[in-house]
Amino acid sequence: MEYYSQKAAETFPYTPGERPERSSIKINTNENPYAPSPEAIAAAREVMGGGRGSRNAAGAAEVSESGRADGAAGTDLRLYPDPESDEVRQAVVEGEREAGGIRLDPENVFVGNGSDDVLSICFQAFFPPVGAEGKALLFPDLSYSFYPVYANLYGVPYRKVPVNERFEIDSRDYMTPNAGILFPNPNAPTGIYKPVSEMESLLEYTLHKSLVVVDEAYIAFVGDAGSYHNHGRVSAASLISRYPNLLVVRTLSKSHALAGLRVGYALGRPHLIEGLTRIKNSINSYPVGILAQKIAAAALQDTAYYAQTTARIVATRERVTQRLTRMGFRVLPSSANFVLAAHAKVAAQDLYQLLGEKGIWVRYFNMPRIDNFIRVSMGTDEEMDIFLERVQRIVEGEA
Amino acid sequence: MEYYSQKAAETFPYTPGERPERSSIKINTNENPYAPSPEAIAAAREVMGGGRGSRNAAGAAEVSESGRADGAAGTDLRLYPDPESDEVRQAVVEGEREAGGIRLDPENVFVGNGSDDVLSICFQAFFPPVGAEGKALLFPDLSYSFYPVYANLYGVPYRKVPVNERFEIDSRDYMTPNAGILFPNPNAPTGIYKPVSEMESLLEYTLHKSLVVVDEAYIAFVGDAGSYHNHGRVSAASLISRYPNLLVVRTLSKSHALAGLRVGYALGRPHLIEGLTRIKNSINSYPVGILAQKIAAAALQDTAYYAQTTARIVATRERVTQRLTRMGFRVLPSSANFVLAAHAKVAAQDLYQLLGEKGIWVRYFNMPRIDNFIRVSMGTDEEMDIFLERVQRIVEGEA
Repeated sequence: MEYYSQKAAETFPYTPGERPERSSIKINTNENPYAPSPEAIAAAREVMGGGRGSRNAAGAAEVSESGRADGAAGTDLRLYPDPESDEVRQAVVEGEREAGGIRLDPENVFVGNGSDDVLSICFQAFFPPVGAEGKALLFPDLSYSFYPVYANLYGVPYRKVPVNERFEIDSRDYMTPNAGILFPNPNAPTGIYKPVSEMESLLEYTLHKSLVVVDEAYIAFVGDAGSYHNHGRVSAASLISRYPNLLVVRTLSKSHALAGLRVGYALGRPHLIEGLTRIKNSINSYPVGILAQKIAAAALQDTAYYAQTTARIVATRERVTQRLTRMGFRVLPSSANFVLAAHAKVAAQDLYQLLGEKGIWVRYFNMPRIDNFIRVSMGTDEEMDIFLERVQRIVEGEA
Repeated sequence: MEYYSQKAAETFPYTPGERPERSSIKINTNENPYAPSPEAIAAAREVMGGGRGSRNAAGAAEVSESGRADGAAGTDLRLYPDPESDEVRQAVVEGEREAGGIRLDPENVFVGNGSDDVLSICFQAFFPPVGAEGKALLFPDLSYSFYPVYANLYGVPYRKVPVNERFEIDSRDYMTPNAGILFPNPNAPTGIYKPVSEMESLLEYTLHKSLVVVDEAYIAFVGDAGSYHNHGRVSAASLISRYPNLLVVRTLSKSHALAGLRVGYALGRPHLIEGLTRIKNSINSYPVGILAQKIAAAALQDTAYYAQTTARIVATRERVTQRLTRMGFRVLPSSANFVLAAHAKVAAQDLYQLLGEKGIWVRYFNMPRIDNFIRVSMGTDEEMDIFLERVQRIVEGEA
């Protein structure tokens, strides 16, 4: 490790789920099974614009004699993008108002290169807060495994707080002096959602002391038909006007079927957004490209489309939960686009392997407390039927 | 600054150039005046694919009943991208071989969200290297002003080494115990290029002691027609096989007219690429989206197109340099897509302001040693004619 910094020598990076060949059923990384909004695709086409570009006889492209010919295909790409992603921020504001009656301004929104980028910047901007020496950042022992990776990379002291015996986050366990709290809601990989009132008590407790980051990567899938119809009641974003120590983090990867685009955002009071912006501008002035900004803004505006796909995913989740339960699985009550399930007799590692042999990719975590569970993302109904049929055979011993 | 970390409270972010209204002449951020390669645009269109998407009578989009319908418009975007950007890495390798006869493997290439992202990761991965206590990172006093921003953010001790009286980097000034060297070549905002032999002596001196990062953001513009015809002789990439302490950083923003896309990369021995990858995987597993990967890979392969646009920009630079010189400017000998110029009689700040009033945006740095220079990016020939005409009037006192 010659030339490595101590950081590089000692870091333990996050390991994402596998990326198998396309022909298989990939229900291991909580991707959305449906296409992104047609409006988003149309927005991208607009940027790409014009014709195919002319080619001369020799096959080499010609640069038009008159200069750069603004308006030619993809010309916008030659310019640096808006560093603050204002169009995306405006679309977020409109989406919150439309879906949940939550009133925000663009000054309440920070946009990053996926929510991982946003979380990484949160760590640098707010953990540990000034004067918090000796206190630790708190997050659940069962949660997004990137949290301890960030904490290690940025040297933030942390403590994992065990979820209770029902695998739930209990906010009372966090009411202890701390240097910040990461509260994923719904949590992953459990899928369990906690009502906004739990966040409220935490925010009261930590007010003027430390920051609470609510990671709402899966918030769209809360409720019987997804949160598009009750967003104002299920998202912590409704508390921003009352709590200066609240930051809500979101991603377009799951709810908006845009994992391949890399856009995430944070919501909070302007002084928190300013803190994130300071760090961003010390790393990369332009974290989100022009195409990503256009596509994200258009997607966020097409609430009708995503209400439909989300409801469909939620219906699939309920059906899969029922079927797995009937097969002898313990399925944690999920409010996300995946379920965490353990079978009474078949070991999770065996299930993972036997499904993988048939090209069905689920996620298995070799970690304390959940090493007998598999996490299953919701695919299309067709895919889930194939999955369920295969699981049925395995648990019936016909594997 | 309640809840801010010390880092957030004390950071001094980088300030990028302004983004004026489109109608003006924007020659202030070294963007490429020509459109990106038509092949790159075609690659993006391929990802977006299919038709516009069907809409029912009520105007709401319909999700096809059969499920996700892979192959529909933009469906690839629902999946996470390749975390290692292998297609881009392969295209970089082919481009190096084709343009300069430089033999590299994909294991020599690291891809990031613009070269700012790559540089930021370099700082975390290699500065200060293990055991380098008390030594400082070295870079020129006149250079990319993001370097000290990174150093401050990551707590890396640094020392600015003055460029000589001709504004050149002199490698002998860096032959002193150090914790790493940042060597921008051509340098910005001077535009001055130093031959590979200078890098070689530095690499010999620091071998097994510290890392030399050669920032080649502007390497494509070196030489009479740009480096596409002599890349193997002008780029430090030719030294990678001999020096394990060399990392070359590049960007597609300027040479490939893709500032709006956000793709940059680093070249070096596999153990250095592994160090960057470790840090990347502790921040964001997927820094480059699917569209960005496809567009970048296609652009890198279209060497014929970029050889043409680069040669054109270089010709414009030579013409602008001659004209400015005749008007009484001192123009530093530039090997980049911009020139740094000072007039004998008209103050740079006045020039900046008088040009701005006419919608011509150049860059002015209120910094020691260059506060009487303006930096002028090369636009189209038409744009530069308007710029030159305006400058002529100003220096003739008709402003």
